[in-house]
Amino acid sequence: MKKKVILVIIDGLGDLPIPELDHKTPLESANTPMLDMLASKGICGMNTTIAPGIPPGSDTAHLSLFGYDPKKYYTGRGIFEAAGLGIPLKPGDIAFRTNYATVKNGIVVDRRAGRINDDDNELAKVFTDLEFDGIIITYKPSVEHRGCLVLHGNGLSDKITSNDPKIEGNPPATIQALDNDADKTVQILSKLINEVETRLGILDFNKRRVAEDKLPANALLVRGASSAVNFPNFQKKYGLKGASCIAGGALYKGAATLAGMSVINVQGATGRVDSDLKAKVTASIQSLENDDFVFLHFKGADNEAHDGNFIGKTQFLERIDSVLEPLTGMENVVLAITGDHSTPCSLRDHSADPTPILIYFPNCRNDKVDTFSERSAISGGLGHLRGTDTINTIMGMANRTKKFGA
Amino acid sequence: MKKKVILVIIDGLGDLPIPELDHKTPLESANTPMLDMLASKGICGMNTTIAPGIPPGSDTAHLSLFGYDPKKYYTGRGIFEAAGLGIPLKPGDIAFRTNYATVKNGIVVDRRAGRINDDDNELAKVFTDLEFDGIIITYKPSVEHRGCLVLHGNGLSDKITSNDPKIEGNPPATIQALDNDADKTVQILSKLINEVETRLGILDFNKRRVAEDKLPANALLVRGASSAVNFPNFQKKYGLKGASCIAGGALYKGAATLAGMSVINVQGATGRVDSDLKAKVTASIQSLENDDFVFLHFKGADNEAHDGNFIGKTQFLERIDSVLEPLTGMENVVLAITGDHSTPCSLRDHSADPTPILIYFPNCRNDKVDTFSERSAISGGLGHLRGTDTINTIMGMANRTKKFGA
Repeated sequence: MKKKVILVIIDGLGDLPIPELDHKTPLESANTPMLDMLASKGICGMNTTIAPGIPPGSDTAHLSLFGYDPKKYYTGRGIFEAAGLGIPLKPGDIAFRTNYATVKNGIVVDRRAGRINDDDNELAKVFTDLEFDGIIITYKPSVEHRGCLVLHGNGLSDKITSNDPKIEGNPPATIQALDNDADKTVQILSKLINEVETRLGILDFNKRRVAEDKLPANALLVRGASSAVNFPNFQKKYGLKGASCIAGGALYKGAATLAGMSVINVQGATGRVDSDLKAKVTASIQSLENDDFVFLHFKGADNEAHDGNFIGKTQFLERIDSVLEPLTGMENVVLAITGDHSTPCSLRDHSADPTPILIYFPNCRNDKVDTFSERSAISGGLGHLRGTDTINTIMGMANRTKKFGA
Repeated sequence: MKKKVILVIIDGLGDLPIPELDHKTPLESANTPMLDMLASKGICGMNTTIAPGIPPGSDTAHLSLFGYDPKKYYTGRGIFEAAGLGIPLKPGDIAFRTNYATVKNGIVVDRRAGRINDDDNELAKVFTDLEFDGIIITYKPSVEHRGCLVLHGNGLSDKITSNDPKIEGNPPATIQALDNDADKTVQILSKLINEVETRLGILDFNKRRVAEDKLPANALLVRGASSAVNFPNFQKKYGLKGASCIAGGALYKGAATLAGMSVINVQGATGRVDSDLKAKVTASIQSLENDDFVFLHFKGADNEAHDGNFIGKTQFLERIDSVLEPLTGMENVVLAITGDHSTPCSLRDHSADPTPILIYFPNCRNDKVDTFSERSAISGGLGHLRGTDTINTIMGMANRTKKFGA
């Protein structure tokens, strides 16, 4: 019988032993009775989303967790942003992450134009009705100075460099084609940036900012060029009636959208440490009534680890543990809990260390692991899973993978 | 923060249980307190340099340990010999291992021409000023009857057979082209062997040997044809400032040279059981002052195993253990210790059995393994590493691999 699946991703879950935590990791240090109970009743292992030794990005890790080999499907960050903001993409469209920036005398003095907090609807109108050589332009603002730009049309390429100088005090970089097929894209982008910056220059919004002694948003930096590719539908691949994403962060909603999942927006789901975890769990249970698959994403542990806050990471993991109870004990549901990558607090960045994984459903082939941690799960029954092994293993346990052979 | 790396390869490390050693392997039988301490403080696993079930050669195993997939980069043994002897190679050059041999009445009576111990400078001059159809010839003698021959030029191929009959009592084999592109190489090699054997026939050196009732070096056997390929630079790949090789054997120096490492010649490093292991460790510590990476190779265990000498192998492993202390306890250094392959004393040859691996650095994710052996490391946190996983895992722990994605 086919089972339903709930996949819980704890972003940045894995860590390294921390001297101040008595040489435990935050997960080992955290009081997590529910995760430990699930580990004890379930089957555990280690999860390497890309390959041994390769630190995963959040984007590539989620592609892999959804069954798309990132070596084949990953073209860059832009399309995740676009999908997360709800911009429709067709194969061949090129998406970019953008920043409004401040340029003075040809020099980028602030890559974030003073982190605009104002309502930027007025700003976004500089992208209205833009078309160059048959290429249509879509822009959607994200938060603060951030946005997403998409070029729709034929003959475009993502094999171009960025104009972001990365370090302030430098002029914007020159956008360059990385191969011959990209010349057209470079030309269109140059015309586009020129026109947008001209419009920004005469905008009342910027005049007001200058009058208030704030930095004007008078330049546009684009990066993360990536071309939309055809993602085989996730639900179709695993024979699912409905697949939902419950996440706060735009990137994760974007990855789920690319896979063809429905994004459920939950009030209080912020993608930050202050997120309403209980509301997300409640929404997941509700989604599971109609859908065969729910992807539930918790972001806060990763944020704390990027800040080097091992106490905060430990506490966030305890908060997650405290809300999991409703997800357990459901008949005909496979519950899988893992991370997309490790984010050791000592590194404040992603690392290649694998994360633990647990899978639980009634009468599963449970092993001897009785706590959920980076070191206890090593001896678990799943062994070391790699890349798309993870989702295939979970779907296999839900009886949703196809027999190969007769 | 990026860490430095020292990779210790114990050649032929792995073995099988030996009845005479109370069913222990030499590594299990050896008294190795330092390796056991490192295993206890570090993270262990199993290392398969090629693929499960495939016995590695020393050349392919080292390619893999340096991050070059041998299926893609291995063209044969010749270029390792050439690089180890310091012959400069350009892509497309073809290198061979050679033997001086003795032929009588058209029959190879000794494939090693009586294992020449004489100073063979006189012999090597038969290769002076050879050029055929624009192809330049380089020859360098190795030890005894051995040498290395390189054809430099365009349009060459390594898809040819050897003239080594393998078994004495047979005539030299006819060198044959294995595809159409190799005809030119066969013709040049035939002319070359003809000319060299003509010169050998009139050499005073050989007249003396015959007068002394020794076997003359009157024939040249060539084998291991391999074409030089472009190896991406090891230091560049992992962002290393300096990478050194400390080894006695020419093959290992050759592999390191192909990867672009610097070869440090240490007095007393013989590549045999009598090697000065302490001097090699001291040289490694010195190299690590300037370089980010040191490859330290110990050969003797493999020699003993090829001779079936399990007592000698056990003792050599104890000798290694006794010199390791200076390599431990360095801040910001990742220490990795493993083998290139197993050489079971009972087989006297390489086998496909994985070798144990340990990695240690302060605050690593240490596991429950507390001795270093083929069987204890099975339950280690690294699981089963395969092929280029090993170097990537080590470099990942040194924070020297690139994030894939954003």
